[in-house]
Amino acid sequence: MDTRDAAATPSGDPHELPSNRGRWGEDDELGTLNLITEEARARGAAEVRTGRTVSLALPIRPTPLVSGPFAPSVQDASPVQQVMVYTGSPAMATAEVIVVTNHHPRSTHLDALAHMPRDGQVYPGRPLGESVTPAGARHGSTTAFADGITTRGVLLDLASDGPLPSGYAVTSQDLDAAEEREGVRLESGDALVVRCGWDMTPDPTRPMPGMSLDAVRWMHVRGVSLYAGDIGDAHPPLDPACPAPLHGVGLPLMGMPLIDAARVEELAAICAEFGRYSFLLTVAPPRIHGLTGVPVNPLALF
Amino acid sequence: MDTRDAAATPSGDPHELPSNRGRWGEDDELGTLNLITEEARARGAAEVRTGRTVSLALPIRPTPLVSGPFAPSVQDASPVQQVMVYTGSPAMATAEVIVVTNHHPRSTHLDALAHMPRDGQVYPGRPLGESVTPAGARHGSTTAFADGITTRGVLLDLASDGPLPSGYAVTSQDLDAAEEREGVRLESGDALVVRCGWDMTPDPTRPMPGMSLDAVRWMHVRGVSLYAGDIGDAHPPLDPACPAPLHGVGLPLMGMPLIDAARVEELAAICAEFGRYSFLLTVAPPRIHGLTGVPVNPLALF
Amino acid sequence: MDTRDAAATPSGDPHELPSNRGRWGEDDELGTLNLITEEARARGAAEVRTGRTVSLALPIRPTPLVSGPFAPSVQDASPVQQVMVYTGSPAMATAEVIVVTNHHPRSTHLDALAHMPRDGQVYPGRPLGESVTPAGARHGSTTAFADGITTRGVLLDLASDGPLPSGYAVTSQDLDAAEEREGVRLESGDALVVRCGWDMTPDPTRPMPGMSLDAVRWMHVRGVSLYAGDIGDAHPPLDPACPAPLHGVGLPLMGMPLIDAARVEELAAICAEFGRYSFLLTVAPPRIHGLTGVPVNPLALF
Amino acid sequence: MDTRDAAATPSGDPHELPSNRGRWGEDDELGTLNLITEEARARGAAEVRTGRTVSLALPIRPTPLVSGPFAPSVQDASPVQQVMVYTGSPAMATAEVIVVTNHHPRSTHLDALAHMPRDGQVYPGRPLGESVTPAGARHGSTTAFADGITTRGVLLDLASDGPLPSGYAVTSQDLDAAEEREGVRLESGDALVVRCGWDMTPDPTRPMPGMSLDAVRWMHVRGVSLYAGDIGDAHPPLDPACPAPLHGVGLPLMGMPLIDAARVEELAAICAEFGRYSFLLTVAPPRIHGLTGVPVNPLALF
Repeated sequence: MDTRDAAATPSGDPHELPSNRGRWGEDDELGTLNLITEEARARGAAEVRTGRTVSLALPIRPTPLVSGPFAPSVQDASPVQQVMVYTGSPAMATAEVIVVTNHHPRSTHLDALAHMPRDGQVYPGRPLGESVTPAGARHGSTTAFADGITTRGVLLDLASDGPLPSGYAVTSQDLDAAEEREGVRLESGDALVVRCGWDMTPDPTRPMPGMSLDAVRWMHVRGVSLYAGDIGDAHPPLDPACPAPLHGVGLPLMGMPLIDAARVEELAAICAEFGRYSFLLTVAPPRIHGLTGVPVNPLALF
Repeated sequence: MDTRDAAATPSGDPHELPSNRGRWGEDDELGTLNLITEEARARGAAEVRTGRTVSLALPIRPTPLVSGPFAPSVQDASPVQQVMVYTGSPAMATAEVIVVTNHHPRSTHLDALAHMPRDGQVYPGRPLGESVTPAGARHGSTTAFADGITTRGVLLDLASDGPLPSGYAVTSQDLDAAEEREGVRLESGDALVVRCGWDMTPDPTRPMPGMSLDAVRWMHVRGVSLYAGDIGDAHPPLDPACPAPLHGVGLPLMGMPLIDAARVEELAAICAEFGRYSFLLTVAPPRIHGLTGVPVNPLALF
Repeated sequence: MDTRDAAATPSGDPHELPSNRGRWGEDDELGTLNLITEEARARGAAEVRTGRTVSLALPIRPTPLVSGPFAPSVQDASPVQQVMVYTGSPAMATAEVIVVTNHHPRSTHLDALAHMPRDGQVYPGRPLGESVTPAGARHGSTTAFADGITTRGVLLDLASDGPLPSGYAVTSQDLDAAEEREGVRLESGDALVVRCGWDMTPDPTRPMPGMSLDAVRWMHVRGVSLYAGDIGDAHPPLDPACPAPLHGVGLPLMGMPLIDAARVEELAAICAEFGRYSFLLTVAPPRIHGLTGVPVNPLALF
Repeated sequence: MDTRDAAATPSGDPHELPSNRGRWGEDDELGTLNLITEEARARGAAEVRTGRTVSLALPIRPTPLVSGPFAPSVQDASPVQQVMVYTGSPAMATAEVIVVTNHHPRSTHLDALAHMPRDGQVYPGRPLGESVTPAGARHGSTTAFADGITTRGVLLDLASDGPLPSGYAVTSQDLDAAEEREGVRLESGDALVVRCGWDMTPDPTRPMPGMSLDAVRWMHVRGVSLYAGDIGDAHPPLDPACPAPLHGVGLPLMGMPLIDAARVEELAAICAEFGRYSFLLTVAPPRIHGLTGVPVNPLALF
């Protein structure tokens, strides 16, 4: 599928929700990752010139799983808890077990397609109870990410003049304007990286900005393969009629994987320094099957 | 530090163990990753031409943490255990918590420098009890890998004619011969990827082959920044006088991070197909601080 | 409430399911434990003469949570997983963290009333989503067991002539006959301990016996405060119209706590030796609030 | 062994530490529980008259293991973490997995003999590395508590006139005086329950009181089978030469199991109300083998 196809297929009708259900068959587990063609990957490869690399992951400082007399007290909730294990006395090696809460607002993580059902179904329209069992996700899980994701990434920096205002709804015009300003054009199969200048920790006193349904529709029309942003869906919701355009439409209807809580400050600084807003993006989650999400350390290579 | 430096510094004296203790200071946490200079990284970047990508990670199929009536029974021990969490009834989203045993022979994982003490000290010579506490590793941990590792990788395929014999001790001559055969030369700062044709699960009836101290000395002289292999140290040990050259010398003395249990079959096939045994290697572990090891999905980019 | 009351209140109508919903108010969390009056407790106390004690709990052998090189391999699924923690090197103390699957067929455990919803409600008729949240059970949880349960226990040994036949449905007549044979009469507020000569591990080739709805109705009429049995509800179900009389009627309608997987062989031997089938039963779960179940070590005191 | 034996055997020499090493053989795992003879148990049974029961356990409110969007945020460190598990959508049952830190100062728990090594050995003199492995304790573990502990308990209320002063060292005279005041005498095989009017959470600004070595020596001479107290060893230590008389002498030398963090306020009130400071004490930990400690809900029966 080339980029004209991708642009042609999705409906532009503003009254319908953007959807790829059925587009790649009833058994599809890749969703918009299908848009990463050889051509798209080569476009990404061409961005690698110096080997300079930036991580798009927030640092995670684990909390000790053990509290009480044998460990310092727990300070903060963390996405990861750690317990150092006894390997004999004296210790033969040092080792630990970690307990990971995959979907945590302070962990940069990749949502699999099965993470969000819509009307009892997960992408591309399978019953939730059949796709996700007590033993793990059977369809639309992290299994689809086994080989990693490699494609061209494009940063649209919406916060180059400062963080977006509280409660602001990002629209397709904002995305078009950023492309214009940066002199870059996102093509089908590219990963979209967005900077809003906020972080995902909800703050009841200052409503977040977030993507509107119009912005998500733009992603559909343009063929975004993967979304990564410092924030995405606003909490509290911007629009009660569509409270979570990325998680409630992008994941279950469009089949577009999401990277929540990306760290994009350093990336933005380097893009500005280089005057170049495109790069090779690699996302290589631990190769663990059957999850609905997984922590990742996305790398931008220049 | 350029490549002549790297070759010059290490001792060639066969009576001394190869060591980088003190080479980069008393507080160093990077070890041989210091060898990945801008020049080395650019050499890696130059390998990226098509965007074709291969994962060097074994697939992990989690075991349900819950056994009993609400989950299928546990089949096999797995590096990862998974528990699907209740998000309300009906479910609002699907999510899980995972429990990860970081150093597991069936998990492709990256050993941090603090993983192996030697004589009560960890690289570069700090007391174990000070560097590793019940709350996690304070020095020489995965914190050093926060930005990922990006450098040129070189596959030396020792199993191109079939798996190495049981109990075989790989020497520097074997590594030299593989370079010769493949027409490639590992330079200072490169990552070494080794294929022996075995996996790391110990089998009491068939002793593994493994790296000899002579092979590890070769890595020291040549400036290997990172070792990745389908296997590395043999179980049971090949040489009682130096039972684990990589884990007992490479980690605590040389400060060379190790990727245990790499999956290299597909990589070897692609290198043979392309007639090219060098590539850009990216290793991007979840950005979790303070661990002694972490599962990774290393990617080779061509 | 005396025993005549207890017998009088519940309906004897065979067309209605036995239920205590509303009997002790809309906020009740004790269910049939309300039947343990001072009089009932004194009746139990009177059974204690020698201090001889029998445990009704199956032994649990934990599985190491850690697999791989630092622990023996996992043999079997266990209700409890254990990880020994590092307390320094050398070790200052020895300690562990355990991971417990509360409802496990090989763990003697006490089911709280909120464990089984019926038609979206838990005893005594509260909406499931309100009573049980992702953070734990808010109503009908183990909080009700904080002070332990102490009352007279009566063993009805249905297996004195050998295990019950496969697929056998225990009726009220069987319970009456056991009382007759043993010369004991279960009174309101007593705990009923049942021995069928089976264990709870399902075996597809040999259907278990189990309690019929008629037997559960008998418990209701007689005022059983707590059920403990080597088995209880049969797997596969004996009666498709009422697949789990204890878990589907006893818990959500009658509010009768259940001890699953009790170990009753030694108890039966001692009762036979003493010629006495009544004793003081104490059940003292760890005082952990908000659970739907918890492992217990019930003690019978003679 | 009768009570005269027990009193006769231990050394009264103030220059030697009290010890039972060797007293019950090299393989002993019961320690002072050996003192609970049939006679001692009958003495306990005779205390049960009304069936009135008091729990000696602190309530534990679990912390959600899951933090982030699917659970309320973590407030405090707790000995128990809880994760509600997905059993399908809609939920078929409600269930959870719990993660328990066994030795936690806010959990009423029973220390097994292997919990504290002394000079690299655990009671009754076995090498630590042999008795405690990465897979659990092999000797002196909770396996010894499988049948529960049932014996007469005696409360010595040292706080009847208010909490003990900060930093106060309890002596044998204090214990003798309490017996005198209460009109009770602790006999060999009895469990000692102590009330100091403090809790075990260390407070750097107000040093705890605690048992002196002299008090522990008294327990040895008198044949205490089990110690339970609201506090026991003081933090910070009262005497640098013997920083933890109960954990450093009582456990590894005397083989005396300890219940840390007992809740004794309600017990003291009832003893005062009844004018009776003896009762039947039952301790029935979940029957989990191989642990170094376990949460318990000790019950005092009157």
